[in-house]
Amino acid sequence: MIETPYLLFLGDAPDALAAKVAQGIRDWRPDYAVGQMRLPGCNADLGLPDMDLAEAKAAGAKTLVIGVANRGGVISPAWMSVLTEALAQGFDLASGLHTLLRAQPALVEAANATGRTLHDVRIPTVQYPIADGTKRTGKRCLAVGTDCSVGKMYTALAMDAEMRERGMKCSFRATGQTGILITGEGVPLDAVIADFMAGSIEWLSPANDPDHWDLIEGQGSLHHPSYSGVSLALIHGGQPDALILCHEPTRTHMRGLPGYPLPSLEEVRDLALTMAHRVNPACVAVGVSVNTKALDEDAAKACLQEIEDRLGLPTVDPYRHGAGRLVDALAAI
Amino acid sequence: MIETPYLLFLGDAPDALAAKVAQGIRDWRPDYAVGQMRLPGCNADLGLPDMDLAEAKAAGAKTLVIGVANRGGVISPAWMSVLTEALAQGFDLASGLHTLLRAQPALVEAANATGRTLHDVRIPTVQYPIADGTKRTGKRCLAVGTDCSVGKMYTALAMDAEMRERGMKCSFRATGQTGILITGEGVPLDAVIADFMAGSIEWLSPANDPDHWDLIEGQGSLHHPSYSGVSLALIHGGQPDALILCHEPTRTHMRGLPGYPLPSLEEVRDLALTMAHRVNPACVAVGVSVNTKALDEDAAKACLQEIEDRLGLPTVDPYRHGAGRLVDALAAI
Repeated sequence: MIETPYLLFLGDAPDALAAKVAQGIRDWRPDYAVGQMRLPGCNADLGLPDMDLAEAKAAGAKTLVIGVANRGGVISPAWMSVLTEALAQGFDLASGLHTLLRAQPALVEAANATGRTLHDVRIPTVQYPIADGTKRTGKRCLAVGTDCSVGKMYTALAMDAEMRERGMKCSFRATGQTGILITGEGVPLDAVIADFMAGSIEWLSPANDPDHWDLIEGQGSLHHPSYSGVSLALIHGGQPDALILCHEPTRTHMRGLPGYPLPSLEEVRDLALTMAHRVNPACVAVGVSVNTKALDEDAAKACLQEIEDRLGLPTVDPYRHGAGRLVDALAAI
Repeated sequence: MIETPYLLFLGDAPDALAAKVAQGIRDWRPDYAVGQMRLPGCNADLGLPDMDLAEAKAAGAKTLVIGVANRGGVISPAWMSVLTEALAQGFDLASGLHTLLRAQPALVEAANATGRTLHDVRIPTVQYPIADGTKRTGKRCLAVGTDCSVGKMYTALAMDAEMRERGMKCSFRATGQTGILITGEGVPLDAVIADFMAGSIEWLSPANDPDHWDLIEGQGSLHHPSYSGVSLALIHGGQPDALILCHEPTRTHMRGLPGYPLPSLEEVRDLALTMAHRVNPACVAVGVSVNTKALDEDAAKACLQEIEDRLGLPTVDPYRHGAGRLVDALAAI
């Protein structure tokens, strides 16, 4: 678990998109973000106070989070001096970069000298169990998609925020690097050893109060040949009571696979339910979440209405119109 | 790669099924197996001479193979003194367990002291690609099962032997530690990082002659909640042209999961074909392989006939009656 709150390091991010990890933290866990730290040339701005390390320390920050995608997979010398100094001043470091903090001898040395922790959230730190398939108390909702990168994490976070506001018991359960950095904990599922995938999800969503909801971040798609096994492990380990179907309506083929068309939402619903019923016969699809970012307001509304009429399920873009109707549907089962 | 012949170490295997690694070597490479070594409490018996280390050494054994697979892959403390002594007496060690020989300081120390080798065949030695789903030339047959440990590897090995005898072009493609110990190569799929599972199977069964068959060893079951993701990666990475359905008729519940009944062969056929058609619309189920070891000859014949009548597919126990009819079915498509 990563100690909060954070100082968000934006480095020399060339644009806002490069800082999307930091943006996610700022959007979904604003209380974790005491400030931002930017280097010369940074063109991203989260609207947070700019702080140096001493100011962030005084404001209570415990961990410096690298909230920016780096270029070329290397940690630049300009970053290195900040990171080393942060360790010296008593910060932990957290990163989702491909280049591991622990692979930098200077950082390992500094962390050892100061007793601080390097969190490489791409690497599992837990010895996960083999899944045992036992029914657990509490309820679980899983986002499943027609493809990768269609808004499954966003959907679960939006529902989590709405449920908190309503005073419902819930936990967002991160299964990817960005989600882990946002919430400070979770399972980096795509880096888990095959035999322990489902077990890691059981571990992530343990027995809980009967009226508590885990909102489990989905990964991949049952219909995506590269990652389908990961998606199935999420269903069988998660034992969902409810599925949210996630979709991006302008996608012309599976992400990275030009030869593979997207499945229909009906196919996703039917296959995911078939799989879910193996571990939870009561599982139902309760709603559809559509990422309409590429559509104007009228086109978005028409798209949502068409899907809602076709599937007979509440259909929203939670970013555009809020997750209220999805939460209503969840609360009704 | 691993020096032969072997002394097969059964440890304190609670039943014959737990010793399936050793059994596989004994059945498919009997010339590799000079004897077995059992500890008090062992309930497995391969019908090989029981030997201590000195006797096995005198009989020419070069490597002590840990021939027992236990849940979670832990090396029991009770085994450690035997393994250390084997190294002292000049044996190499080979293991397919999750827990690595090389992670045991006592074994590393003993191996270094005696110049012997620790073979952890479960560890992937290749940087596998992400699956790209592209169609490959050549044909592929995959064994899929109603459960784990129902005879998928045996089925593929028996078909491989039969096809070689007929002069057909074929390759057994190992995906588990036993298969790798038997053939000396393959993918230790259950130890592969989640994101690379399907890619590892594409790598294992590359483009080949149009009339060449890969006989891909199956793993787990789409219906086994602990390992289903691995089974799906095999289907989506393998792009099978043909499926063999594998079954053990006396199994009362999914292995290790008392709460989960076995699926019917029809359910396995339908779900596996649904999944396979995503990557190969021409895939068909061509036969059924039943492990009738627990049945007498009459009961076995009745069982096979009942399934054959029900599914309308050639149904055999390849170990008991040969794989000829399965190979006939494969040759016919």
